[in-house]
Amino acid sequence: MTRSKDTLRDVPIGIDAKGHREEFDSMGTVEVPADRYWGAQTQRSLLHFSIGDDRMPKRLYHAYGYVKKAAAMVNARAGRLDPIKAEAIIRAADETIAGQLDEHYPLFVWQTGSGTQSNMNVNEVISNRAIQLLGGRLGSQSPVHPNDDVNMGQSSNDTFPTAMHIATVLELDELLLPRAKALASAIAEKSREWMDVVKTGRTHLQDAVPLTVGQEWSGYASQLFDAIERIELTRSGLYQLAAGGTAVGTGLNAPEGFSAAMASTLAWLTNKPFVTAPNKFAALGSLDAMVAAMASIRGLAVALMKIANDMRWLASGPRCGLGELVLPKNEPGSSIMPGKVNPTQCEAMVMVCIQVIGQDNATAFAGSQGNLELNAMRPLIINNAIRAVRLLADACDKMRRFSVEGTSLNRAKIDAMVSQSLELVTALSPVIGYDRAAAIAERAEKEGTTLREVAIRTGVIDAKTYDRVIDPRKMIGHGLAGA
Amino acid sequence: MTRSKDTLRDVPIGIDAKGHREEFDSMGTVEVPADRYWGAQTQRSLLHFSIGDDRMPKRLYHAYGYVKKAAAMVNARAGRLDPIKAEAIIRAADETIAGQLDEHYPLFVWQTGSGTQSNMNVNEVISNRAIQLLGGRLGSQSPVHPNDDVNMGQSSNDTFPTAMHIATVLELDELLLPRAKALASAIAEKSREWMDVVKTGRTHLQDAVPLTVGQEWSGYASQLFDAIERIELTRSGLYQLAAGGTAVGTGLNAPEGFSAAMASTLAWLTNKPFVTAPNKFAALGSLDAMVAAMASIRGLAVALMKIANDMRWLASGPRCGLGELVLPKNEPGSSIMPGKVNPTQCEAMVMVCIQVIGQDNATAFAGSQGNLELNAMRPLIINNAIRAVRLLADACDKMRRFSVEGTSLNRAKIDAMVSQSLELVTALSPVIGYDRAAAIAERAEKEGTTLREVAIRTGVIDAKTYDRVIDPRKMIGHGLAGA
Amino acid sequence: MTRSKDTLRDVPIGIDAKGHREEFDSMGTVEVPADRYWGAQTQRSLLHFSIGDDRMPKRLYHAYGYVKKAAAMVNARAGRLDPIKAEAIIRAADETIAGQLDEHYPLFVWQTGSGTQSNMNVNEVISNRAIQLLGGRLGSQSPVHPNDDVNMGQSSNDTFPTAMHIATVLELDELLLPRAKALASAIAEKSREWMDVVKTGRTHLQDAVPLTVGQEWSGYASQLFDAIERIELTRSGLYQLAAGGTAVGTGLNAPEGFSAAMASTLAWLTNKPFVTAPNKFAALGSLDAMVAAMASIRGLAVALMKIANDMRWLASGPRCGLGELVLPKNEPGSSIMPGKVNPTQCEAMVMVCIQVIGQDNATAFAGSQGNLELNAMRPLIINNAIRAVRLLADACDKMRRFSVEGTSLNRAKIDAMVSQSLELVTALSPVIGYDRAAAIAERAEKEGTTLREVAIRTGVIDAKTYDRVIDPRKMIGHGLAGA
Amino acid sequence: MTRSKDTLRDVPIGIDAKGHREEFDSMGTVEVPADRYWGAQTQRSLLHFSIGDDRMPKRLYHAYGYVKKAAAMVNARAGRLDPIKAEAIIRAADETIAGQLDEHYPLFVWQTGSGTQSNMNVNEVISNRAIQLLGGRLGSQSPVHPNDDVNMGQSSNDTFPTAMHIATVLELDELLLPRAKALASAIAEKSREWMDVVKTGRTHLQDAVPLTVGQEWSGYASQLFDAIERIELTRSGLYQLAAGGTAVGTGLNAPEGFSAAMASTLAWLTNKPFVTAPNKFAALGSLDAMVAAMASIRGLAVALMKIANDMRWLASGPRCGLGELVLPKNEPGSSIMPGKVNPTQCEAMVMVCIQVIGQDNATAFAGSQGNLELNAMRPLIINNAIRAVRLLADACDKMRRFSVEGTSLNRAKIDAMVSQSLELVTALSPVIGYDRAAAIAERAEKEGTTLREVAIRTGVIDAKTYDRVIDPRKMIGHGLAGA
Repeated sequence: MTRSKDTLRDVPIGIDAKGHREEFDSMGTVEVPADRYWGAQTQRSLLHFSIGDDRMPKRLYHAYGYVKKAAAMVNARAGRLDPIKAEAIIRAADETIAGQLDEHYPLFVWQTGSGTQSNMNVNEVISNRAIQLLGGRLGSQSPVHPNDDVNMGQSSNDTFPTAMHIATVLELDELLLPRAKALASAIAEKSREWMDVVKTGRTHLQDAVPLTVGQEWSGYASQLFDAIERIELTRSGLYQLAAGGTAVGTGLNAPEGFSAAMASTLAWLTNKPFVTAPNKFAALGSLDAMVAAMASIRGLAVALMKIANDMRWLASGPRCGLGELVLPKNEPGSSIMPGKVNPTQCEAMVMVCIQVIGQDNATAFAGSQGNLELNAMRPLIINNAIRAVRLLADACDKMRRFSVEGTSLNRAKIDAMVSQSLELVTALSPVIGYDRAAAIAERAEKEGTTLREVAIRTGVIDAKTYDRVIDPRKMIGHGLAGA
Repeated sequence: MTRSKDTLRDVPIGIDAKGHREEFDSMGTVEVPADRYWGAQTQRSLLHFSIGDDRMPKRLYHAYGYVKKAAAMVNARAGRLDPIKAEAIIRAADETIAGQLDEHYPLFVWQTGSGTQSNMNVNEVISNRAIQLLGGRLGSQSPVHPNDDVNMGQSSNDTFPTAMHIATVLELDELLLPRAKALASAIAEKSREWMDVVKTGRTHLQDAVPLTVGQEWSGYASQLFDAIERIELTRSGLYQLAAGGTAVGTGLNAPEGFSAAMASTLAWLTNKPFVTAPNKFAALGSLDAMVAAMASIRGLAVALMKIANDMRWLASGPRCGLGELVLPKNEPGSSIMPGKVNPTQCEAMVMVCIQVIGQDNATAFAGSQGNLELNAMRPLIINNAIRAVRLLADACDKMRRFSVEGTSLNRAKIDAMVSQSLELVTALSPVIGYDRAAAIAERAEKEGTTLREVAIRTGVIDAKTYDRVIDPRKMIGHGLAGA
Repeated sequence: MTRSKDTLRDVPIGIDAKGHREEFDSMGTVEVPADRYWGAQTQRSLLHFSIGDDRMPKRLYHAYGYVKKAAAMVNARAGRLDPIKAEAIIRAADETIAGQLDEHYPLFVWQTGSGTQSNMNVNEVISNRAIQLLGGRLGSQSPVHPNDDVNMGQSSNDTFPTAMHIATVLELDELLLPRAKALASAIAEKSREWMDVVKTGRTHLQDAVPLTVGQEWSGYASQLFDAIERIELTRSGLYQLAAGGTAVGTGLNAPEGFSAAMASTLAWLTNKPFVTAPNKFAALGSLDAMVAAMASIRGLAVALMKIANDMRWLASGPRCGLGELVLPKNEPGSSIMPGKVNPTQCEAMVMVCIQVIGQDNATAFAGSQGNLELNAMRPLIINNAIRAVRLLADACDKMRRFSVEGTSLNRAKIDAMVSQSLELVTALSPVIGYDRAAAIAERAEKEGTTLREVAIRTGVIDAKTYDRVIDPRKMIGHGLAGA
Repeated sequence: MTRSKDTLRDVPIGIDAKGHREEFDSMGTVEVPADRYWGAQTQRSLLHFSIGDDRMPKRLYHAYGYVKKAAAMVNARAGRLDPIKAEAIIRAADETIAGQLDEHYPLFVWQTGSGTQSNMNVNEVISNRAIQLLGGRLGSQSPVHPNDDVNMGQSSNDTFPTAMHIATVLELDELLLPRAKALASAIAEKSREWMDVVKTGRTHLQDAVPLTVGQEWSGYASQLFDAIERIELTRSGLYQLAAGGTAVGTGLNAPEGFSAAMASTLAWLTNKPFVTAPNKFAALGSLDAMVAAMASIRGLAVALMKIANDMRWLASGPRCGLGELVLPKNEPGSSIMPGKVNPTQCEAMVMVCIQVIGQDNATAFAGSQGNLELNAMRPLIINNAIRAVRLLADACDKMRRFSVEGTSLNRAKIDAMVSQSLELVTALSPVIGYDRAAAIAERAEKEGTTLREVAIRTGVIDAKTYDRVIDPRKMIGHGLAGA
């Protein structure tokens, strides 16, 4: 290998040119916009795959920056890549990681199923940016070649799923998990605040025995913390990286030890416990770890939907609904009905949850459609995963700030309802038996009177005992774990 | 009603101002960017609902422009709205329809489930633009009030689903149906071209009796034309409009005859056979017509997925696959394997189809979640519908241009395979019976020889009869309808 | 063809034998239970495919009976099948149609994707039963051969989807459509009964302007009648039959005209407008008509879910919920809470609807998985279709009889709520403007007083005008079509 | 408490009676079949909920047997339940666990969403059986009352999800996990057997660089072992039991310590690490642990679908497909094409996987539909979970025995294909660069000749180097972890 003696020039990001530049690949030359770093294959993809509006999530490219950086480091350390080329590639990769080259990654989601075009986009941009830093001519593929240098020891087949895993881990750790935890904590705080407020329980939507508002909300918090933990657990599959499998999993054209070196370098760069996948054929042929991660994300959606639905029903009214909760009034609710305020944050959350459940369904479907040495449904899966993460993260954030934190109780309504519930009769059941208790409840309902009145009048119990047994405050148990 | 004597001023679109402007609604005042037409409620929504990246599809606003225009026309005709106000509203609505105000419709998808915020966005933008045209002060809500004038006789609850139906019909008619038909026609053209090329049939992926390539492709065309017809049929539900139901379906605050007048005006404006929905309670409380339309769109995806999968399998190879089709080489296929060309259009199509199936799943879920007088999952449903339409439309277009039209046959491979297939034996079955035919096929396979050799050697048939019966060209029937 | 001179013997159904009988197919001999009519291939399937508990729906076999009967008639008429054999086949087919041979059709759903094993099950049972009727030896395949005679001119590939279409049409017409219509009619009857009962409307679960209970229920009826119509429309695709396409769609081994003759014979036998599918390659390679039919069935589930959810929320209480409806008390609701009655029919309906939506999702997925000349996901699709039809049909029936018909109104609750709703203020909006109306509503809510009190005290309106404008009975419009 | 002095009588299971017996509950009396143990509420459910064919899975009742047994033990130990009653209940519970009373648990799946009717079915059967063992009169509810004794300290709301968790854990441990592991092991065994057989790799279905058959199958095994591990991990959520929460999570009517005692007793009885759920409100209001378990089961389906599809494509042919694998011939494949053998086990597996993915979709939907103190979608979820487990378990078993274990290689075909693949050129890329390598491959394809011929003729490489570099056996890496 001839070693360049150049040093990196201090050229700011950007190409000061107008019109078009000629770029080439193994199929020939293509005109690209002169102020863009991308090359022929990116341009071909823009032509052939302008499908819908969705672009490949930028986060995927940031993650790809780590992959290219790690590969350059590993290749340079092993003496396979000229240090100055490596330095240039690393600089361009760092700019990619930082999002500074985002506008040079324009590709649509719906492209080749391996993600090759996005990998080539990265190879081309980094190649041209590195060439620029080394004083070369853009589009010359020299001295830094997109395939031979930037893609050295790599294939789209192993690097794209590597970037998928990195992108998903980073989005989970930096976006979804903190925001979901903040929401869960806000709910837990409300639970503590309202731990002693006795309210009517409802099962099957029908009046049931009492519990406290705090207990009810502790259930919400518990659901969320459990869902969060399940998401955290699925990261273990995402920590396994395909890099080093190259084209079909055998590692052809990558030197021995490349897999392990890539994984450890990526772990060091990102500060996440990435390791090399023990079986590269599975790592290329399937996306099972992504499917599992998406399922855990869906699990959070399932929990959030229940909570959001509860909140909006409990806040229904103000006069003709359950009316226990008073949600913050963030905006007028109706273009025609003056003074109406609606549970809009809950509605947005419910829709987001349904969307995520649908995205998970598409993800599982796509996950099943691998063939032989490749699952060619990768763009679909990373797009749905990253979008689901963002939707839920943002919805958790908004829900916490604009709904949960400002929610208060309508104590008068809560107190009135708990006192008139017929299901307090349940506490009589161990004393007088299920059947006689049922008869009292039914009679009170029919007569529109109170349990107490019926119970004492019919002589099944004396007033003193009744008042001792039927006290809602004594019917709420001692905490969160039931009896 | 006092009638203004103003005339419309010829003010071009745009607000020449910097910083912020004060806008108000029933909850108080809000600062909005001074160069935007929107008002307080739009701004509140931007603050509270910045969830994910998805914005409400612009097409929905174009359709809403028709609704506001029609309402202004109907209200003015009836003398309820000052003609000059109506004129200004209509001008602003026309600009909305034409997409000229797109940047003033910035709201996110995930907002209030009724779409009220998008309706108010339209009311506010049209109000301010109309005020501008009438020489008033932006933000003054005078002389054109967003609720009292632009929203006159309307609610979000009836106009949002009206706009949903209009937007979906327009996208189907202008985008999806023409592109799907163009693809189906291109396939039908290939079918005619290849009608006489005999090839091996395959059922269960296993060799079966022959058919022609043209027959095979006629099946694809038939699937697509059927799917297109099913989409066309679901428009009948979309033609029914909710306008005139106002807040809960009763039409409160809208004058008698408003529903019918709105529908006929919208039909006239759009040249589509819109009618007023016979039951406004269903039209507000459900989105069943949208769910049905989405199901028919999904039906197209189901058909397209089969076709795209067939194409990529039939093109598999070039040397170690089925290799019957030669797809156009649009781009290099691999970052590591030189010379590799992949069925990328088919892969993009398959992913799009899976995505649409997932979107349909979310749509049905959301469609089931109406409560009482409102289905508050509207933004989810219109977003998925419009996006699914665009994805499929674009994918059909790309598939036709970059894959189907340039596909050719590998005649040598096709001919070689048809001649060696053991399932030609089926034609012997009516002559010598199923069981003896099976024995011949099995023996030929075991010995690695031909059917003819075994059949004649074992004496079950003479050579002359064999050659008369076993002629692939005679085994393909007489057209598309089978026997 | 030699023609038998035998006549059919009058042998009742049943085989008076114990132990096992030897049966054979092209792979050799197999022991089958001596008292069963099935043959070797059925037995092989039982061995290899005992997966889960689900058996192929019996209705599919009844439909297959029609197919075999029609084929025998057509083949005999054309002189290809000995009349006495045809007569025996027809007798056995009639017994199959009538369900008299159900226990001889034991196969599991999860078998070969073409349904070949079920077709062979029918061929074998009819062959043996016909042999029995003709005095032959069971298992001899003579004088009536399962393939050469019973399956004459047919393949599983064309007859199985033919039977699928017939079975689905019959189940829809005889089971789902009548029961769904009965439910819709019962709801429409309630709507008429309650047309004048004014109640609080609710949008976003929040109090809105009034409507009548009858109007609300008219929306339910309207949704159902629309959904039913959509199901009826999808039958047009099911009326197209694949029969005559034989193995791959070319009609090999079937005589000319067989397709049309089969369709017209099946139309005559079933009294349904069956026709031959115009393109047999699509008819074998896809199941798009089934996917479309399933989507329309799902549409009914989507509508029913909304209705069932509304009913259980409107019946929530008895004291701490909305409490407008009183559902029939069919059973004690709780094992621990005496006197509790739950909306169990609604819950069962909701679960059935979710299940059907999931089944539809699986059906669309499977519909997309055809390959080349065959979609090999047929058992999945017919199983889900038939089961979804039955679930919904039964749930509609139970819901009507045990919930809708016995539902009554809690007039006291309804009246009390409508009078205290703040959203009556909407009717003031056209009189005093949206903003002042909003201020009144907000103030009344804050002070816990009535709209009237605030409106008059603050002087925005006089008492007389107020009482004229704010009359819930005048706010409900004039019927079902809104303004 | 008065303590009975009776001892249990040795009465075999069964009621020697004809006609009907009168049973009662809090709503009155009902006639039940005299030879059945169930009571009034079971009979009411049979009347009101005969929806479809699906009955509640028997395994759920076996698990419920453990719950009732544990409760009797705990209650007796604490002196709340007469020891002789406890003994009788435990005997009847043991019979339930053992499946000996299966025919007395006839209820349909689609019933009340809490599962109350199934809980009452268990209470009634155990009560009557215990009464029989104690010499009492059936239907007298004495001396063992279904609610007061058998259901003591319990509600359906906490015991039904407890039984769901137990049933699912048992089915996973006894059925799915062993069978999935056996399949994975059989595949791993094949992988070892074929580790040195070099074959053509395929990505995007197109020829790619070589790997070995063993490597390919190691990927399958790896996918399965990972999926199995993910299922095992989700058991941790299932180990948390709701028992002790009673009606709404507060534990009303259960004595202090009951939750923990129930969990430890159930752990002891089943030998599984069950613990009490730390938050009973979440345990009753959600089914998140079931949703997560189902997602992991779906994960196995996703993996199996890929494997089954690969197998059937690799076995496609015998003469016109990929033809690398030879699957066992289990049955004739066609009713019309003699000698045809199809990949039927793979097809059944694919259908089962799609069904499970659909069931998971329904499960997530249902999981999101909890309201307030109860998720009333329990029967749907347990039915789908148990059925999915059984489908996959059986399909794994059949696939292993009837497909994987008997699969062999077509070495001639494999060898021929690997030698003619153009993608061997990839190994030249590091030597001569990507672009020149691509040119060679393209030229060889165009000319229909070999890489070697073109490479040497065009002078880019000498023959000796070519032969050293292009050796498929050297292109397969060194194991499973790639480079």
